[in-house]
Amino acid sequence: MASIDSFKKYTVNKSTPIPLYFQFKNILIEMMKDDVLKPGDMIPTEFELCEIYGISRTTIRQALTELVNEGKFYRVKGRGTFVAQTKIKHDFTKKVKSFKDEMSNHGYTPSTKVLEFKVVPATPEVSSALGLSPNADVIYLKRLLSVNDEPIKISQTYLPYSFCKQILDYDMHEHSLYSILSGNINTKVYKVLKDMEAVVPTKEDCELLSINKTTAIQLFHVKGFNKFETPVEYTISRYRGDKNVFQVEQFV
Amino acid sequence: MASIDSFKKYTVNKSTPIPLYFQFKNILIEMMKDDVLKPGDMIPTEFELCEIYGISRTTIRQALTELVNEGKFYRVKGRGTFVAQTKIKHDFTKKVKSFKDEMSNHGYTPSTKVLEFKVVPATPEVSSALGLSPNADVIYLKRLLSVNDEPIKISQTYLPYSFCKQILDYDMHEHSLYSILSGNINTKVYKVLKDMEAVVPTKEDCELLSINKTTAIQLFHVKGFNKFETPVEYTISRYRGDKNVFQVEQFV
Repeated sequence: MASIDSFKKYTVNKSTPIPLYFQFKNILIEMMKDDVLKPGDMIPTEFELCEIYGISRTTIRQALTELVNEGKFYRVKGRGTFVAQTKIKHDFTKKVKSFKDEMSNHGYTPSTKVLEFKVVPATPEVSSALGLSPNADVIYLKRLLSVNDEPIKISQTYLPYSFCKQILDYDMHEHSLYSILSGNINTKVYKVLKDMEAVVPTKEDCELLSINKTTAIQLFHVKGFNKFETPVEYTISRYRGDKNVFQVEQFV
Repeated sequence: MASIDSFKKYTVNKSTPIPLYFQFKNILIEMMKDDVLKPGDMIPTEFELCEIYGISRTTIRQALTELVNEGKFYRVKGRGTFVAQTKIKHDFTKKVKSFKDEMSNHGYTPSTKVLEFKVVPATPEVSSALGLSPNADVIYLKRLLSVNDEPIKISQTYLPYSFCKQILDYDMHEHSLYSILSGNINTKVYKVLKDMEAVVPTKEDCELLSINKTTAIQLFHVKGFNKFETPVEYTISRYRGDKNVFQVEQFV
């Protein structure tokens, strides 16, 4: 938890026309950016904040209400106001990174749990996505991916058995799929096409991601192609909607 | 509705190893692609389909069940099986088009209802997005966008009043926002950044989009910039999750 002294390092300016609630709100946002306030931290009471900044309780409350409404803070009755876990930003304007690298770059601790890893016959959906004949063998890899021990994504990956079978020798808790596939020019993923949809959670989503029906799911259908435009990978990912935001850039 | 004869033009091949249910399923998908089967069309009964293709009812049923599960068809008890409205695909790998142009290109009939259009003081969120001083005047435009008379998207757009006020002279039922803004180099949107999230619907979403709580919302926060990287537009869009899919392309 941040000390009262750390709050005192940030000040409001009463001689500008910028509303005090807005200045105070920006102080809290600034402290989050500076990592002085971290997810889970409790902030001082409204009374203490009035004292620190010399501003009214109404002003403090207006700022906190907006921050709570924006999902940046949350209140626990009888305890206080806390810094929320901010959403993980996935930047689609940049190159694809492995989950591990992407999360580590954000300063998060990623982890992977392998739920299933076996050879199965392709369903019509999978054989169509991978351009295989019906019932062809595919490698099925189902993983639960977490950040700071909180599950955020379920992924189900299908790979053509015929040219990806070497992957069965790896421990997928430890290794990144793309780094293994990149060992061979035929399986190295060069380009991915992602179809994104918003859906309500299934029973399994709620169980695996520890959510309830009021959290939506960002559903992805991803096809990965090698340099020769042959499909190498078909992945269905289900992200917690409340923990992830995806950025794209487009030109007019 | 498609005639029995139009079905007879598509045939199954009993001498290949491709399962008959899969061949029959692909016939229906082919007929949708060829526009012989259109959204809302009823298909012949299972009995008639057995006759046309000379295959068993179990086979017909397996294909139809998969197509229903995939959302391509839907069943109405006591009436029959119908072609579903397919999802609208928004291709983010291409340039931004106006809603009207994008939908017309897909063969849909787009329409716009203006719900609000007025000058308001910017909220902190809006002034921060547009780089304006707090409470600066902004033009607020709230629209409900429909396709084939079915509402699919609510959009709330904020524009800096100071350099976009000319837009107030236009009837926004008729005109595209981007085409008006493109009249001036300072307001012409050159690049957009879109933040995407999956959320559950609000009460207003359910009312305006005619959905219930089991349909998720694809939420967008869009910032549009001119060629000089100045923010021109801030739009919050709420799409029906069950009617829209968004495609992005990324390189590894």
